[in-house]
Amino acid sequence: MAPAQHQGRFITLEGGEGTGKSTLARGLAEVLRADGLDVVVTREPGGAPGADAIRALLVQGDAARWSATEEALLFAAARLSHLTHTIRPALTRGAWVICDRYYDSTRAYQVAAGGLPAGALETLNTLIDAPAPDLTLVLDIDPSAGLARSRGAHVGEDRFERKDAAFHARVRAEFVAIAEREPARCVLIDASLPAESVLEAAVSAIEARL
Amino acid sequence: MAPAQHQGRFITLEGGEGTGKSTLARGLAEVLRADGLDVVVTREPGGAPGADAIRALLVQGDAARWSATEEALLFAAARLSHLTHTIRPALTRGAWVICDRYYDSTRAYQVAAGGLPAGALETLNTLIDAPAPDLTLVLDIDPSAGLARSRGAHVGEDRFERKDAAFHARVRAEFVAIAEREPARCVLIDASLPAESVLEAAVSAIEARL
Repeated sequence: MAPAQHQGRFITLEGGEGTGKSTLARGLAEVLRADGLDVVVTREPGGAPGADAIRALLVQGDAARWSATEEALLFAAARLSHLTHTIRPALTRGAWVICDRYYDSTRAYQVAAGGLPAGALETLNTLIDAPAPDLTLVLDIDPSAGLARSRGAHVGEDRFERKDAAFHARVRAEFVAIAEREPARCVLIDASLPAESVLEAAVSAIEARL
Repeated sequence: MAPAQHQGRFITLEGGEGTGKSTLARGLAEVLRADGLDVVVTREPGGAPGADAIRALLVQGDAARWSATEEALLFAAARLSHLTHTIRPALTRGAWVICDRYYDSTRAYQVAAGGLPAGALETLNTLIDAPAPDLTLVLDIDPSAGLARSRGAHVGEDRFERKDAAFHARVRAEFVAIAEREPARCVLIDASLPAESVLEAAVSAIEARL
């Protein structure tokens, strides 16, 4: 593990439903804190008061409630609030930020699976001046296995889980494609392994890269 | 008044707080309906179920709750929902849509008074494919007189009203500037006149232009 730095690190966890991102976030925080690091665990959408209010609109209600463009605009507003009030202050004081979902999720869900033009996401990222993560861990699992895991875990917050199988297949394929396109930033991890093996793979990736 | 058309008309009412937009909307609807027209009166933010949920985030709470960029993103999401579910279907069936606030309000509040770059609004308008109104009636009044009128009228929905005097002065100046820059689309109306005179001026503008 790298020694405590005087500059923060921005690590994002990505992947479909039930890939174990929140379990990994907790495990990583424990490992990094044992190394004496200041660690902030957060998630999208949410992570700040304004962003949490937007989260409720995004994850609750009917699956067809919003178009992909409306979703992308709401995610961008929530992301900016999250960056302003939580992520940037933490990075500035030198903390390590572990963020469960970030803009790769918008690319997978709204662009690849939802049909939003990729240029629209680039435009929104520019508008909110979204920083690139230092490292992105992409958790990969067969969507049917992931959905079986996550079913019932997010009662009332399952709007995306209720999208159809073809949607979730496109989400998974895009996450894999992102990891392949950006190997310097992304590490693909087999999320069908036991949680301790996933954590081990994530720690190895952090040791090797950060 | 023009005879009933087989194509809808999109009329927006713009202006600062307390300029009498909702009173004018009701008056215009009455006049147009007396002419046998199908009239839809609506407002921003809101005008559709999704957009109404976003409205609550925008008009309630602390004045500093959102940055101008966050506001513009939320308005764009609400506007797209409103266009998709209310405005476009009405225009398609040939109705006259009278909309209390539209993208000129984003230009006045978020760009001119809030500091959002004008290009960001253009980008968002393109992203949601926002149609230009056929006619925009800009109601102008001294902001202190307008705020005195509107005070107490929107309990719990006064987030923008609570911005400072300099903010409201910039909003007013921008609305006037918009009307001057786009004379083919906009008509400036003195909103300090009695409501019946404002309605008369609005009806005259519609007769002359549509």
